[in-house]
Amino acid sequence: MKETFKVIGKIFNLLAKIVGYLLLIALIFGVLFWHVWRPLKIAKYEPKTPEHLQQKEAYLAAIPKSTNYRPNIVLINFDDLGYGDLSCYGNQLIQTPAIDSLAANGVKMTAFYSCSPVCTPSRAGLLTGRFPIRAHAANHVYFPENHPVTAFRKFRNQANELPKDEITIAEILRASGYQTSMVGKWHLGDRAGHLPNDFGFENYYGVHYSNDMLPLHIYRNKDIEIADKTELADGEGNFITGKLSYIDPETPLKTKGVDQTNLTENYTKEAIQFIEKSKGHPFFLYFAHSFPHVPHFASSKHAGQSEGGLYGDVIEDLDRSVASIIQTLEQQNLLDNTLVIITSDNGGDFNGSSGNLRGRKFETFEGGQRVPLIVYWKGKLPKGIVTDQIAMNTDLMPTLLSIAKIPLPSDRKIDGRNIWSVWTEKAESPHKVLYYFSPNNGMPKGARNKQFKYHTAGEKFNSIYGGLAAAQLQKPQLTNILLDNEAHNLILKYPTITEELKNSIEQIQEDFKKNQRGWVKE
Amino acid sequence: MKETFKVIGKIFNLLAKIVGYLLLIALIFGVLFWHVWRPLKIAKYEPKTPEHLQQKEAYLAAIPKSTNYRPNIVLINFDDLGYGDLSCYGNQLIQTPAIDSLAANGVKMTAFYSCSPVCTPSRAGLLTGRFPIRAHAANHVYFPENHPVTAFRKFRNQANELPKDEITIAEILRASGYQTSMVGKWHLGDRAGHLPNDFGFENYYGVHYSNDMLPLHIYRNKDIEIADKTELADGEGNFITGKLSYIDPETPLKTKGVDQTNLTENYTKEAIQFIEKSKGHPFFLYFAHSFPHVPHFASSKHAGQSEGGLYGDVIEDLDRSVASIIQTLEQQNLLDNTLVIITSDNGGDFNGSSGNLRGRKFETFEGGQRVPLIVYWKGKLPKGIVTDQIAMNTDLMPTLLSIAKIPLPSDRKIDGRNIWSVWTEKAESPHKVLYYFSPNNGMPKGARNKQFKYHTAGEKFNSIYGGLAAAQLQKPQLTNILLDNEAHNLILKYPTITEELKNSIEQIQEDFKKNQRGWVKE
Repeated sequence: MKETFKVIGKIFNLLAKIVGYLLLIALIFGVLFWHVWRPLKIAKYEPKTPEHLQQKEAYLAAIPKSTNYRPNIVLINFDDLGYGDLSCYGNQLIQTPAIDSLAANGVKMTAFYSCSPVCTPSRAGLLTGRFPIRAHAANHVYFPENHPVTAFRKFRNQANELPKDEITIAEILRASGYQTSMVGKWHLGDRAGHLPNDFGFENYYGVHYSNDMLPLHIYRNKDIEIADKTELADGEGNFITGKLSYIDPETPLKTKGVDQTNLTENYTKEAIQFIEKSKGHPFFLYFAHSFPHVPHFASSKHAGQSEGGLYGDVIEDLDRSVASIIQTLEQQNLLDNTLVIITSDNGGDFNGSSGNLRGRKFETFEGGQRVPLIVYWKGKLPKGIVTDQIAMNTDLMPTLLSIAKIPLPSDRKIDGRNIWSVWTEKAESPHKVLYYFSPNNGMPKGARNKQFKYHTAGEKFNSIYGGLAAAQLQKPQLTNILLDNEAHNLILKYPTITEELKNSIEQIQEDFKKNQRGWVKE
Repeated sequence: MKETFKVIGKIFNLLAKIVGYLLLIALIFGVLFWHVWRPLKIAKYEPKTPEHLQQKEAYLAAIPKSTNYRPNIVLINFDDLGYGDLSCYGNQLIQTPAIDSLAANGVKMTAFYSCSPVCTPSRAGLLTGRFPIRAHAANHVYFPENHPVTAFRKFRNQANELPKDEITIAEILRASGYQTSMVGKWHLGDRAGHLPNDFGFENYYGVHYSNDMLPLHIYRNKDIEIADKTELADGEGNFITGKLSYIDPETPLKTKGVDQTNLTENYTKEAIQFIEKSKGHPFFLYFAHSFPHVPHFASSKHAGQSEGGLYGDVIEDLDRSVASIIQTLEQQNLLDNTLVIITSDNGGDFNGSSGNLRGRKFETFEGGQRVPLIVYWKGKLPKGIVTDQIAMNTDLMPTLLSIAKIPLPSDRKIDGRNIWSVWTEKAESPHKVLYYFSPNNGMPKGARNKQFKYHTAGEKFNSIYGGLAAAQLQKPQLTNILLDNEAHNLILKYPTITEELKNSIEQIQEDFKKNQRGWVKE
């Protein structure tokens, strides 16, 4: 009996050792692969590029401080608002009369895209007019500086802040004499030197990250105005370090000190004050709402009213905010001198609607990147225009500069194009092709032209964010983007179109590999 | 130096052993959990239940062989046809004029469901009128008898064949004097005693499994008529045992011996011959197409014609098949005496369209279970009726029996309801609630009434089929199924409706746990 146990023991020992060895070896190779070989494929983030900083400064210094007439610009960027979340984009439960009225009296685009299906890259692209990878803002989102993920990001050569040598639309407009203000969520780095006030915003009121990331302090410029006192773990497993547990509509966990039910209203008050104060000078207001990103909190004044439930309440709060902004512009007699733009940083999330589109946030299916875009400018833009011309949020920067008559920087590639004539004259899009960018590494996963979309196969497991991210197609797909919901594969039927779109993906991939930052050599 | 290596070696050894031990222990517990504890929760499959077999025989024997007028029934069941794959259900690329014409001249249901988002369970429910779990047909699909998965299924107490004591619609109709024939895919077991001829079909021409499972012999009754000679592995990794590698639209792998480009046409010829031969007797034709399940093969006669690509070609072949069937009925003067039903076993797969619904095959989102249903009966059914009353494919069996004036069996629960008046008089659905069933274990994952759908949280990892299966909701969801695309969660807004739907799920769960087979005690 004892002998038998001995033999069993020996076998067990041997097995354990073999299994252990194999796993240790796999682990070692895995770590080497993950942390050495893979990151090498990503251009290393260099926080300081003195040459390009100088070029940036030279460009900004050369912009004349004009005293000529220039329009005010109000750019409202929602967080995770889905393509189908507004009633003017087909939502049947949620009512957004203020935004609908702007659409009815302005321009509504039905093929407008954010440059990423996640937050940080989309905002980098929006403010710089360049694809997110150029600003090292393509690897998912920036995390709080003391968060473990940040250490991991740095270990992998990933940036965790907008590089100082990038030029934002705010810096340019400010250089030309605009008053600039930002209200809301930044999410482009929380380190000194990389905050909104460091990137052209004279005034800033808002939070550094998404409203599910801690600490959610509300800052006025560089100082905390309302401190978030949420413990990073509450002992009941409800919080994970630096991140609110969310999604649960029944018991959304509250930040302590910062009351998210007031967030939209607080932001709106700040925005209104800025507009009132700025009267007489051209101003640029970047109003980056924290909602409808999770967790969801409705204003206590209107909670429970929407047929769309809590999510609907949150959206209807946002619509009321838009109504207040428009009302303020009207009261200040600024409406015919102010361009109002409304969009979203990416597609709808868990409880958001993609309308009839396939997919959601994190994915390069339409639901991940196609977002509402409404532009309104009383007397200057035609009324009730609906256009299906393709455009991207990287186009806003060059379009706004053209309106303000400021030349683009010439030391770097600006990927966006001026789409002013698409709005005013229903012109053809300046883009032959638009891209869909991976939320993992910022590389193109797909491309569309006016009628067709080509999508490469999935990338399910190629990232630590893999579970969340990326369209899960087993095989490349060409679809008729106008008449089909990304279902029927037309690769065999249209080999030439397939080849063309595939080539444009490869071209831009090459460009990214050779010159990721897009520096233009003199 | 040597000493250092020794120390490193010892540390490595120790680590390997610890890792190995931990993993071995985890493995042992995992296996115990998976194979002992978990299966205990599933009612064991008993292939022989003499008592119920006797009841079945008594019921069938008591059915009078009527000589009265009875309509012919043609039940066409597509495989993986999505809700949005037909032009009469909104497809803009694929043309299905024959089916559209039946819809325009008959009844089209817009809230008709298969009883499972996968194949085998759906077919079991369709033929027995009972929820799939009652027939032990709820754990994903049956596999070829000699396939490794089958051994695994049996080890887990799962059936791999329709139990002999189940009663199919074919057995009942045959007992009452109908001529019965099946053409196409069975997928309810491939063992002797569990084949179509054993379940009431006098004639059978078709395949035992899905067209991606090997061997794909074409049988005439119990004999192989066309043998599949595909090697189970071709040495290049293109086949996995017993299953064709599929999905790839560019290089679909071909079965050898069985030419899938002729499959639809062959089936159709058989169906037509049966109709022609049966003239004069009431007949029941169950025409279970193999397409549009993957891999896709279009008839060489029409390949490349559809704007929907290869997938469109496959669907348009199916439409031509329907046209031929209708033409035959017309030529034989049978149209006003034949009820034609068209539906699908579950939602669309990889290249199929769910229309504007969320999700696809394998999921309990709408796209997984909502399918087309068209019924046409010249002179007997109203023309051009479109109804959004809720119904399920389990309703077809009791509806057909009511038409043929045959009483239902009384020794077992029939979950389906007679929906004849929904078709003829636009009546209210007999169902207050319909269920969505997990493709893993057949338990209800969701329930809907006329306006709302309640969905429990996901079950991502609770099955070996987990990766494929089940809606991945992190939290339970109540959605307005009429006005929203399963996006906005209304649990907080409508707690009573939530509670009601949750209760119906719990009730049926209780029923399944207490009396899975649904035997009715005298």
